[in-house]
Amino acid sequence: MYDGIVQELIDEFGRLPGIGPKSAQRIAFHILQTPSFDVSRLASLLVDIRERVRFCEICGNVSEQERCAICRDPRRDQTLICVVEDAKDVAAIERTREFRGLYHVLGGAISPIGGVGPDDLRIAQLMQRLADGTVTEVILATNPNLEGEATATYLSRLLTTLQIAVTRLASGLPVGGDLEYADEVTLGRAFEGRRAV
Amino acid sequence: MYDGIVQELIDEFGRLPGIGPKSAQRIAFHILQTPSFDVSRLASLLVDIRERVRFCEICGNVSEQERCAICRDPRRDQTLICVVEDAKDVAAIERTREFRGLYHVLGGAISPIGGVGPDDLRIAQLMQRLADGTVTEVILATNPNLEGEATATYLSRLLTTLQIAVTRLASGLPVGGDLEYADEVTLGRAFEGRRAV
Repeated sequence: MYDGIVQELIDEFGRLPGIGPKSAQRIAFHILQTPSFDVSRLASLLVDIRERVRFCEICGNVSEQERCAICRDPRRDQTLICVVEDAKDVAAIERTREFRGLYHVLGGAISPIGGVGPDDLRIAQLMQRLADGTVTEVILATNPNLEGEATATYLSRLLTTLQIAVTRLASGLPVGGDLEYADEVTLGRAFEGRRAV
Repeated sequence: MYDGIVQELIDEFGRLPGIGPKSAQRIAFHILQTPSFDVSRLASLLVDIRERVRFCEICGNVSEQERCAICRDPRRDQTLICVVEDAKDVAAIERTREFRGLYHVLGGAISPIGGVGPDDLRIAQLMQRLADGTVTEVILATNPNLEGEATATYLSRLLTTLQIAVTRLASGLPVGGDLEYADEVTLGRAFEGRRAV
């Protein structure tokens, strides 16, 4: 639609997740027409990111060093490990400031349809971390969907062999949500998990 | 939230229009975790785009040459000029394949609140293009909003001094739309502009 490089840039932005053709066009024109936007900075970050970012050798979180900032922090509770699917989930939990233990990033969830089995996840590394007996509780914080539940079930069975408490995040109504609009499964979970007040 | 460069890349993507913090995070992780995504290609396009892209000296459309592909094309009807606010509008009209004339990109619309007056737009250049009498019709295709209408009104008054037909794109119900959900102004316009069948 456009001459050469403008269309190339639009196409390239369109390859990123969540960016459709219209958004890609808007972004390309913004870059073209906004002199204050620092293109060279974005360009150099793109070039550097793959070289500079690695995954923490202990927990699998993103890190610029061999061990991530959380695994390096001695003030974190070394007896607690929260198991998540993805590094993005670590950031989401950190934002709550509710958890002061360590993490373990699986790198996905078991999905027979997606062709992801237990051997494709960082489960062996988790078992190795639990071997020395320091950890007393493993919190399974995989997503509350089919794959996440399957992964949590698989892990909880695997961990029964060890003398470690295994817990799962509570499912229920989202805070600030409207009961009327909750789906049946969530509402059912909220009933199952009801507490005395 | 993240270590160094990951957060920097997320912040940089968050500066682009239409990309919030969550989308920026998703994009940064996609780039980090998708080996097939060609970061160096996107980086080099970003560096090149400002150098290689200029604006057509005649119509103001984006171009890699002094004159854009439309202004260079002798098969386009040289007697018709369609006036638009932005180069993105040229692409939108080209997609319809309904118009075979030339364009004139104003570079915005008159907006007293935004501090944009007639002198900030490419209006003098338009008058210059119309001076030799080749053009017989000017189609005002500014946006059907307050600023676009003000700009169209301003231009139509200015053009009455010349012997040139001045037209405006039709306003009305969008094709495929639902009468029930149309806003009052659009529905009012659709009545005003009704045609015999």
